[in-house]
Amino acid sequence: MSKEHPEKALLLLSGGMDSTTLLWWMRARDIETIHTVGIDYGQRHRIELEFSAVLSKQGGGTDHRVIELDMTQIGGSPLTSDGLNVPTAAAGRQIDTVVPYRNMLFVTAAAAYGETIGVSDLFISPVKDDYSAYRDCRRAFYDALETALSLGATREAQVRIHTPFVECPKTEVIAEGLRLGVPYGQTHTCYNGTRPACGRCDACIERINAFIENGQRDPIDYAVEVDWRMP
Amino acid sequence: MSKEHPEKALLLLSGGMDSTTLLWWMRARDIETIHTVGIDYGQRHRIELEFSAVLSKQGGGTDHRVIELDMTQIGGSPLTSDGLNVPTAAAGRQIDTVVPYRNMLFVTAAAAYGETIGVSDLFISPVKDDYSAYRDCRRAFYDALETALSLGATREAQVRIHTPFVECPKTEVIAEGLRLGVPYGQTHTCYNGTRPACGRCDACIERINAFIENGQRDPIDYAVEVDWRMP
Repeated sequence: MSKEHPEKALLLLSGGMDSTTLLWWMRARDIETIHTVGIDYGQRHRIELEFSAVLSKQGGGTDHRVIELDMTQIGGSPLTSDGLNVPTAAAGRQIDTVVPYRNMLFVTAAAAYGETIGVSDLFISPVKDDYSAYRDCRRAFYDALETALSLGATREAQVRIHTPFVECPKTEVIAEGLRLGVPYGQTHTCYNGTRPACGRCDACIERINAFIENGQRDPIDYAVEVDWRMP
Repeated sequence: MSKEHPEKALLLLSGGMDSTTLLWWMRARDIETIHTVGIDYGQRHRIELEFSAVLSKQGGGTDHRVIELDMTQIGGSPLTSDGLNVPTAAAGRQIDTVVPYRNMLFVTAAAAYGETIGVSDLFISPVKDDYSAYRDCRRAFYDALETALSLGATREAQVRIHTPFVECPKTEVIAEGLRLGVPYGQTHTCYNGTRPACGRCDACIERINAFIENGQRDPIDYAVEVDWRMP
């Protein structure tokens, strides 16, 4: 095993395509112990929590833990407020879906849990496409967060945040997942939290495009008709 | 008003001596709008939440908000686990009371709330004595956290974490509070969460010593007899 891969690690597994692909990617790199963590943050698409528990088992996760972090208290995003509608991708308002400091709270809570079980290698799956809308998907942010986590650990420690897909377009991530046999039919993406998926929110559109660019048809159902041919 | 003090700010107000002193200190510096935030993290001494709500009003807080962050899920500390006893100061095991990444989660949640109300100046009250046991009470940690918060903000932003007492011994903080008329009888300190206070945990001992070193008697009651004379 190359030095860059730890023996035990903690993975933030949302049950979406990227984090699920990351689980399969980690397994393929012989990371022996993979504790997976899902976050119940009051998301409209909380259905993803059920998917992530199943996927953890299927992907060889050592154990799976759900941590509650109620972001509905903070508000400000349609993902956590019933009163706000999820914008369609066509509206060009993906920034409105931001839940403030969501990733930072997730990683910090994961680090706290990791400290209690002796794990300081944390994996999270931002992809390159994310960071046009989400500043907390850039590597510079994770570098700063890593420093804060190391300085704030209970005892002297080096916490590492691994983001192997951060410079990788989503299409390539999915291509890798298709090679690895990721069961995408069991992942959840739609911000509206529906099955069939709405097919209109930013998350659905990105997912659909990633399949089309790979010359594949997404195994999940959509509430709208999708043209799966290459444009 | 000097440039270093913002017009509006958010204060993490636990209801203990240090954060309460900081509220009075901020008022004395003409910070006009002070949103106070208490965190319900499942602490054994949750009685402090009632004190903080009252103190916010009394100290001129603009409004007070309680955010829930259930740290009992993380475990590892007697402050959040009924099954673990709070060590006495005599045991010399203050590090056992650490709740992993507590301050980091608090500040990040406060920053998230701050973003929704347009406040990017956050105040928190670590004091110099804290950082022998608590690494997340050092300024270097807050510098790193500030960088992560700025890089992770939804839109380009400069988040500032103000820690005016970080190089100040607790005795001096209390001296300042006594000058400012802080109603210490209404603050809560004891880790066991009892009134009268236990008088034996690290938090009580530090509090008692701070009063003795100021030649004062603490207005709150203790379950043990305390000798208030200077040693």
